[in-house]
Amino acid sequence: MSIRIFITGGTFDKEYNELSGQLYFKDTHMPDLLELGRCKMPVSIQTLMMIDSLEMTDDDRELIAHQCNQCDEKQIVITHGTDTMAETATLLARKVKDKTVILTGAMIPIKFGSSDGLFNLGSALAFAQSLSPGIYLAMNGRYFHWNNVRKNRETGVFEELR
Amino acid sequence: MSIRIFITGGTFDKEYNELSGQLYFKDTHMPDLLELGRCKMPVSIQTLMMIDSLEMTDDDRELIAHQCNQCDEKQIVITHGTDTMAETATLLARKVKDKTVILTGAMIPIKFGSSDGLFNLGSALAFAQSLSPGIYLAMNGRYFHWNNVRKNRETGVFEELR
Amino acid sequence: MSIRIFITGGTFDKEYNELSGQLYFKDTHMPDLLELGRCKMPVSIQTLMMIDSLEMTDDDRELIAHQCNQCDEKQIVITHGTDTMAETATLLARKVKDKTVILTGAMIPIKFGSSDGLFNLGSALAFAQSLSPGIYLAMNGRYFHWNNVRKNRETGVFEELR
Amino acid sequence: MSIRIFITGGTFDKEYNELSGQLYFKDTHMPDLLELGRCKMPVSIQTLMMIDSLEMTDDDRELIAHQCNQCDEKQIVITHGTDTMAETATLLARKVKDKTVILTGAMIPIKFGSSDGLFNLGSALAFAQSLSPGIYLAMNGRYFHWNNVRKNRETGVFEELR
Repeated sequence: MSIRIFITGGTFDKEYNELSGQLYFKDTHMPDLLELGRCKMPVSIQTLMMIDSLEMTDDDRELIAHQCNQCDEKQIVITHGTDTMAETATLLARKVKDKTVILTGAMIPIKFGSSDGLFNLGSALAFAQSLSPGIYLAMNGRYFHWNNVRKNRETGVFEELR
Repeated sequence: MSIRIFITGGTFDKEYNELSGQLYFKDTHMPDLLELGRCKMPVSIQTLMMIDSLEMTDDDRELIAHQCNQCDEKQIVITHGTDTMAETATLLARKVKDKTVILTGAMIPIKFGSSDGLFNLGSALAFAQSLSPGIYLAMNGRYFHWNNVRKNRETGVFEELR
Repeated sequence: MSIRIFITGGTFDKEYNELSGQLYFKDTHMPDLLELGRCKMPVSIQTLMMIDSLEMTDDDRELIAHQCNQCDEKQIVITHGTDTMAETATLLARKVKDKTVILTGAMIPIKFGSSDGLFNLGSALAFAQSLSPGIYLAMNGRYFHWNNVRKNRETGVFEELR
Repeated sequence: MSIRIFITGGTFDKEYNELSGQLYFKDTHMPDLLELGRCKMPVSIQTLMMIDSLEMTDDDRELIAHQCNQCDEKQIVITHGTDTMAETATLLARKVKDKTVILTGAMIPIKFGSSDGLFNLGSALAFAQSLSPGIYLAMNGRYFHWNNVRKNRETGVFEELR
């Protein structure tokens, strides 16, 4: 049994460009995080895109769904920007069946000292192994069903709709 | 629904005493880690002891079991030194029923830069919410049943017995 | 003998706003850095402004010069954005006499894991104690006279003009 | 002009062995620190020994003095355990002439999150460039003449004798 990890970008993988002073994407830090966590779960990491989730299009989401269906693994973790994570989950719920898909991300880039990324990754990998098939978000130490979650833009916290 | 977190010490909470050059225990770093992870799960933290797990006695383990049974929560995370984590799990399996108990720890103190503690805590809290009642270890990004795990002393990695 | 530390902003003190995803200024991290460095030099910290050095005006620079002249201390460290650090030094050289003034900053915010800020601060405080009166920049482990330095925009490195 | 950096061990370079739970020496972290500080001063790093300064013998100190005299550089930084840093400085003062020698170290290993090592290194390199020939300690953001310094064992702070 192995877990597929899809990388799509988001705050999780943003870095600080010290020449321009801008945040940007270079490579994913996923392998470093798995090593830091001494993770021994077999995983297969695949970068699908490296974008801010506010710039994610429907085509991008279709691609993610396609990749979820294509891959052999039944357990999938997707790193994703937090702003439209729930939107992507909604599309995946329509298109991906019989797999446990966990979307997760970070409020602070993992390259910065105080990121929640390592914590979120630990919980996402755990939920991928233990929840029944379906589409979920893992943030704030909890999991949410795709159709019962939103990001509160004022607090930055994910919460249930009802 | 809330998760009870019991602190028992272990590498997880060790600190460097800059006057003596020794490692020692002061307070648990659990609240800091939960804040770092932006954890919004309701939790109740209780320090039972602050010891190296090589010094843990049967009486200590009985106390942990007693506390697991006493508390209202059905989902429990225990931070514990890695060396005898499996032993404590064995005793808990005899004494604690109908609760999901996850033991976890760290190979490197969380006060040091390169700790696996935050990752392990994320996975332990997730497993506590999603696994059926029983006694488990959460390390290396995986979970292990209490009766099918050992720490490989040469590699520092937890592995199944069979 | 005490050292005056003036804060003007710059990358040094930038933080990541996890709600907006933007970099911004809150408070200076100077006291935290001095504690981290176990600094026991008597210092007096004063925040003059919190701005990006690309937005610094001549009026701002006049204010800095005025403050340098006003304060009792003969040794002064100024944290400053790197982009116009040399410009400010040029104005200070005209206006401030008989004091050792060291401008320093950081290429990466000190809140991010991989900042040069703590190193630069250590060297700036040392140069303030040991160089003769004049206006200097302390970056890249070196010091530069105000009239013989520029920031190489392509490499991010400070270098002598001749 | 270049600075010679001699490594002798001390808390500065200690690491945590996650299998044994002991602190130990592997390689020096000096190159990583210089990169972190974006240091562009030409330096030449040489590891003389990797020991706790409480275990340093007179022969070890003679070796350090010999190396200081042998090397071409006139400016030398020595990383050293804090406990006997002043003793080594005393011997160097007898044997090494016409060079600026700065001993420095750390109260917390630089591999741990909260080390003063990067700050101390920044100040040591700066003092090496700016102080007149002699033997000095650079700790706590200050410099001390070899014959007017002691480590206060109760506070961990370096202070002048008179």
